[in-house]
Amino acid sequence: MNILVTGAAGMLGARLSARLLGEGLGGRGARRVILADAVRPDVPGARADCRVGDISDPQFAAGLLADRPEVIFHLAAIVSGEAEQDYTRGYRVNLDGTRHLFDAVRAARYCPRVVFASSVAVFGGPFPQRIPDDFIAAPQTSYGTQKVMGELLLEDLTRRGHMDGVALRLPTICIRPGRPNKAASGFFSGILREPLAGQEAVLPVPDDIRHWFASPAAAVANLLHAGQVDLSPLGHRRALNLPGLSATVGDQIEALRQVAGADALRLIQRRPDATITRIISSWAQDFDPVRATAMGFSGDASFVDIIRQHLAETAG
Amino acid sequence: MNILVTGAAGMLGARLSARLLGEGLGGRGARRVILADAVRPDVPGARADCRVGDISDPQFAAGLLADRPEVIFHLAAIVSGEAEQDYTRGYRVNLDGTRHLFDAVRAARYCPRVVFASSVAVFGGPFPQRIPDDFIAAPQTSYGTQKVMGELLLEDLTRRGHMDGVALRLPTICIRPGRPNKAASGFFSGILREPLAGQEAVLPVPDDIRHWFASPAAAVANLLHAGQVDLSPLGHRRALNLPGLSATVGDQIEALRQVAGADALRLIQRRPDATITRIISSWAQDFDPVRATAMGFSGDASFVDIIRQHLAETAG
Repeated sequence: MNILVTGAAGMLGARLSARLLGEGLGGRGARRVILADAVRPDVPGARADCRVGDISDPQFAAGLLADRPEVIFHLAAIVSGEAEQDYTRGYRVNLDGTRHLFDAVRAARYCPRVVFASSVAVFGGPFPQRIPDDFIAAPQTSYGTQKVMGELLLEDLTRRGHMDGVALRLPTICIRPGRPNKAASGFFSGILREPLAGQEAVLPVPDDIRHWFASPAAAVANLLHAGQVDLSPLGHRRALNLPGLSATVGDQIEALRQVAGADALRLIQRRPDATITRIISSWAQDFDPVRATAMGFSGDASFVDIIRQHLAETAG
Repeated sequence: MNILVTGAAGMLGARLSARLLGEGLGGRGARRVILADAVRPDVPGARADCRVGDISDPQFAAGLLADRPEVIFHLAAIVSGEAEQDYTRGYRVNLDGTRHLFDAVRAARYCPRVVFASSVAVFGGPFPQRIPDDFIAAPQTSYGTQKVMGELLLEDLTRRGHMDGVALRLPTICIRPGRPNKAASGFFSGILREPLAGQEAVLPVPDDIRHWFASPAAAVANLLHAGQVDLSPLGHRRALNLPGLSATVGDQIEALRQVAGADALRLIQRRPDATITRIISSWAQDFDPVRATAMGFSGDASFVDIIRQHLAETAG
């Protein structure tokens, strides 16, 4: 079995690629995993076939399909903040890149499984308390707009028989490893990651802000599941709200206390920021992912689990 | 005031253009109406500035914006049946064409009113009995997919301040003037238009099939209203389900009897077609267009009115 991963050098892409190289998919070993990204993925292994290029170049996209991979994980994207700042680049990579890749699938005339990494950014308020599976996709960012457009293209090509596609609307990933970044959502990871490493972190929003989370491991497990599960229960609607963990900042902090003790909490600096609070307040807080749950997708049980998992991964 | 109409040679585009050339918009005369289409629009008048070209050519789209029209009506599109048959051409004209036009608006750095002709084809079942304003857009045709993508782009550019846009999801137009066509929906017009002209028409579906209609005049009136109404009540969600008339085939036939007498009904040949019945049964039947109604958009009162209006228009 050949497998293609785009965005293979990213945080989720690298984890996904390592899992695919190590254990294959659905009990079948991967003969070859094609790892595509704008920078060289840091995933060693004889079966890793690294391709460095620009996903928005139709030739590059077509080349990735040359060996007709049976399963395609399409994760390549410009992130939310950059897509908002650079309109042209956002549409070029997130929309045109997806379209070129999907058109290459169509031109190859077979019907691979395609797993597209979408996002809860496809949703915009006003929200019900818990967002149902058939809630309207009314994004309020260019990134969210581009992701819905990719979902629609995937659904059209699936309906036309060119692919067996599914779009996973990933929750906000927490705890993101690595250094702090300037994304508006960055503090959700920072207020856990930094204190766990003995460093200070800034909390710009009130403790009662609620949000929708998945650990990196849960996100990768759901991507792998999407690569092999029977998608026919979805019918025409192939964009899936994934299970996740709905938690407040207060819940996160209480979990940190339980795992790391009260001293760790002193490293959290409360510095209210009206702009960040306004942005975060406009985001989805809770979902009722009936369809994905019935199909065997799953989320994290608690923030205590998420923190313990992060500690285990960063201990090595 | 300069006004731009794309698709100006089409059935609605020509009627809209004639109205704009005759009376302007919102009580203001039109200094110039730029009429763009792939074929030369048949609309005479000294203030008509006809442009023949391909909307999917970025240069052509950019040229249409050179004089910064204050209001833009974007109607140019490949129709539903052709977009389904010719995947590449459908996306090129309906998606790329819309994108080039909207990108030209963005590049011109002003904020015109943009009215985009969308369609109830953005919706796919399963449906509630009456479709609410915030119903999920899950199209089941390539045409519907391309129309949602255009709506999303319009909403993103409106949010970013490049246009003041609104997408009108037009009901099925009935009675379409002219000759019978091969669209699956063609009979809805044919079973009225042909008997009114003393000719036979085929009815391929049962009498209890229900559908959602607007007369050409109602559609044009709503396009004109959209060119001048205050759109701020819409907030971020700029795709609007228009008022229309929900009627069964039986309702249409009863209206025909009232206007043209029982003899006209004998010209309707019932020849059940399972394929057409299946396609039509999957379409939306009724809407509850609360937002558009509150903003002053309106639909037809009855099929008797629609038929009388058609007779008045074709009498000349």
